[in-house]
Amino acid sequence: MLQSQLFTRTSKTAPKEEEAINAILLTRAGFVDKLMSGVYTFLPLGLRVIHRISQIIREEMNAVGGQEVSMPVLHPKKNWEQTDRWNSVDILFKFTSYYTKTDLVLGPTHEEVVTPLLKKFILSYKDLPRAVFQIQNKFRDELRAKSGLMRGREFLMKDMYSFHASEADLDEYYEKAKIAYETIFKRVGLGKQTVLTYASGGTFSKYSHEYQTIVETGEDNVFLCQKCNIAVNKEIIADQSTCPQCGNKDLKPVKAAEVGNIFKLGTKFSKPFEFQYKDQSGSLQDIWMGCYGIGISRLMGVVVEAFHDDKGMIWPESIAPYQIHLICLDDTSKTKSDILYQELQKNQIEVLYDDRMDKTPGEKLADADLIGIPYRVILSERTGDNIEIKKRSESDIKLISKKELFVQMGK
Amino acid sequence: MLQSQLFTRTSKTAPKEEEAINAILLTRAGFVDKLMSGVYTFLPLGLRVIHRISQIIREEMNAVGGQEVSMPVLHPKKNWEQTDRWNSVDILFKFTSYYTKTDLVLGPTHEEVVTPLLKKFILSYKDLPRAVFQIQNKFRDELRAKSGLMRGREFLMKDMYSFHASEADLDEYYEKAKIAYETIFKRVGLGKQTVLTYASGGTFSKYSHEYQTIVETGEDNVFLCQKCNIAVNKEIIADQSTCPQCGNKDLKPVKAAEVGNIFKLGTKFSKPFEFQYKDQSGSLQDIWMGCYGIGISRLMGVVVEAFHDDKGMIWPESIAPYQIHLICLDDTSKTKSDILYQELQKNQIEVLYDDRMDKTPGEKLADADLIGIPYRVILSERTGDNIEIKKRSESDIKLISKKELFVQMGK
Repeated sequence: MLQSQLFTRTSKTAPKEEEAINAILLTRAGFVDKLMSGVYTFLPLGLRVIHRISQIIREEMNAVGGQEVSMPVLHPKKNWEQTDRWNSVDILFKFTSYYTKTDLVLGPTHEEVVTPLLKKFILSYKDLPRAVFQIQNKFRDELRAKSGLMRGREFLMKDMYSFHASEADLDEYYEKAKIAYETIFKRVGLGKQTVLTYASGGTFSKYSHEYQTIVETGEDNVFLCQKCNIAVNKEIIADQSTCPQCGNKDLKPVKAAEVGNIFKLGTKFSKPFEFQYKDQSGSLQDIWMGCYGIGISRLMGVVVEAFHDDKGMIWPESIAPYQIHLICLDDTSKTKSDILYQELQKNQIEVLYDDRMDKTPGEKLADADLIGIPYRVILSERTGDNIEIKKRSESDIKLISKKELFVQMGK
Repeated sequence: MLQSQLFTRTSKTAPKEEEAINAILLTRAGFVDKLMSGVYTFLPLGLRVIHRISQIIREEMNAVGGQEVSMPVLHPKKNWEQTDRWNSVDILFKFTSYYTKTDLVLGPTHEEVVTPLLKKFILSYKDLPRAVFQIQNKFRDELRAKSGLMRGREFLMKDMYSFHASEADLDEYYEKAKIAYETIFKRVGLGKQTVLTYASGGTFSKYSHEYQTIVETGEDNVFLCQKCNIAVNKEIIADQSTCPQCGNKDLKPVKAAEVGNIFKLGTKFSKPFEFQYKDQSGSLQDIWMGCYGIGISRLMGVVVEAFHDDKGMIWPESIAPYQIHLICLDDTSKTKSDILYQELQKNQIEVLYDDRMDKTPGEKLADADLIGIPYRVILSERTGDNIEIKKRSESDIKLISKKELFVQMGK
């Protein structure tokens, strides 16, 4: 992509009404734009990050047998009445169609849709287990949307739901889902910072689990057991002050941001929809369910909170909008830079090329630091036949050959 | 994908309350599920088609310089008041946040969001032209949703908006967009059936344009000029009974379904948002806009209307959910079929493998015809070392070698 053609521009000043680092940096760099409180447009650079995170999550959900669907945003009231959540869930956007007088809800989660959907297809034990997931916008009528992308009124989620013949089968799948989640957080670059966190479990299991990324600016407090490398959340610590795995009493409070949660639903949703299956003997049995969420736009915000410095963002390679930020500092290196841009594109290396001739070298370098693409590449008279390369996450500048650059980029 | 693992199942009977062929076949084959009138879930097979159509459109929009974004579904009332459309557009889903008391609209189109968004970034003639697009759910409070996927209350759209320094530049880009649209309809398999259709143009141009696919079950009448291979719509024929290109008076009425529309907006939206740019002399000039829509879920419905027979759907290869439907008819060919399935997957050929052992050969062949994957492949004792292959669109059955199969699939 030619930066001269990109319709967004960077800004030196922080946007008004934003306090969270993720919102400030993502807005300044032209990744997102706020339409209203808790509601953002994803601009080209931001949407590329969203697509890359989504693809990692999609691959890992497929790997645990998840089948991708796309359920509607509009839900009929009757589904939410059937589970008694029409009045009890307080963040529903509710409204009535002017023409059909149907009462509608904007989906904040999809148990009310996925349960009757799967009921149409799952009849016998032979049809179990099954897992379905979607990547889709969710809506919450929040009193106070805050923390930039970390608590939105409209936000992108991956939500998966699993269906089982027994509690034992749910338990087994739940452990697989945990491993898939660990892989996802590792792949997006948050593996080291993110801990499995015990939370309260509702009717059907003692605990549910959150994935919490330890970061100074997180809005939660979690209590870390360093022996087990797990944590417990506020609710749990109020109830028991020991590690649920090893009994350790020395739990340390740290700031963290939630990036995912998994929950054993048991028969909470299958019962109101009378969703049962026929076992081998032909008798009807309850379906057991689990649900598994990751806030994708939220995760993008948390990555920025975790990886930035005073100059800007520092994207992990796996989810960066581009791999290389090629910068043409001045006229003397324009031809050389143009040729390298063509060669990188031909080799399918994703490159943002700063070809703007009306900006000073200082402005271009500052923009590169703000945008945070992993590798900054510069050609100049000084570099001769070689290439100056600098990792955003390091301060060293290296001179390497074009061939070495391609090898480094996996070509 | 193993068909035994697919959570959906086919149905021999048509769904209740559906009259359109697309809704009947897509529901029977397990591509979509109706949640309520005009609101559908895309199931795994259907979502694969949606993703393939979306990717074709994305590539062609990128090719004409479109930059992908994702704008919110939730719009604030004030943007729609600024263009005087809060009261004049009758299909808006309107509601109020319980907590913040903000009046909101679910976006049926995005001029009210994209115009003030681009105003933040386009300052001078140097920043023009620009085009942005998104692929996103749209909402219309329709009195009567009908025709299955062809008129929904919630549906997937690609909408692009272009921004220009002059009417001449808009005109030039508009012609490029026409070529991109032709390429898209050709690539999704509707090239021959789809005609550029003159429609009424609003304030800023004599005509806008629709793309209409000629199909018996279409809900529109268009009037075809066979000399120019274009058409005019009902509004235009009421006004003038001649071809706008060649003056031909012999315009033939045919049934058609709209699959896209493009429109010169002129300064209709830039004026209320006071969106201007500085020209070379430093004086402020109006921005000229165009908009370019394709209903993606609707297009999927139209493809089914155009390509089906009494047995089921017939997907064009470019947008089929899988390229090959491998069918294991009985136990004797299970091992051979399993091996071929592995080989196809290893070569990244997309294959749905009917490995269900509790279905009769007749049921499996009927399901394959209903689902409509382009190539049906069968191994049996009778085929020896060869492979039986049948195109869904043809009646011939051929015996070919495994090597020939891989060549046919482009490997």
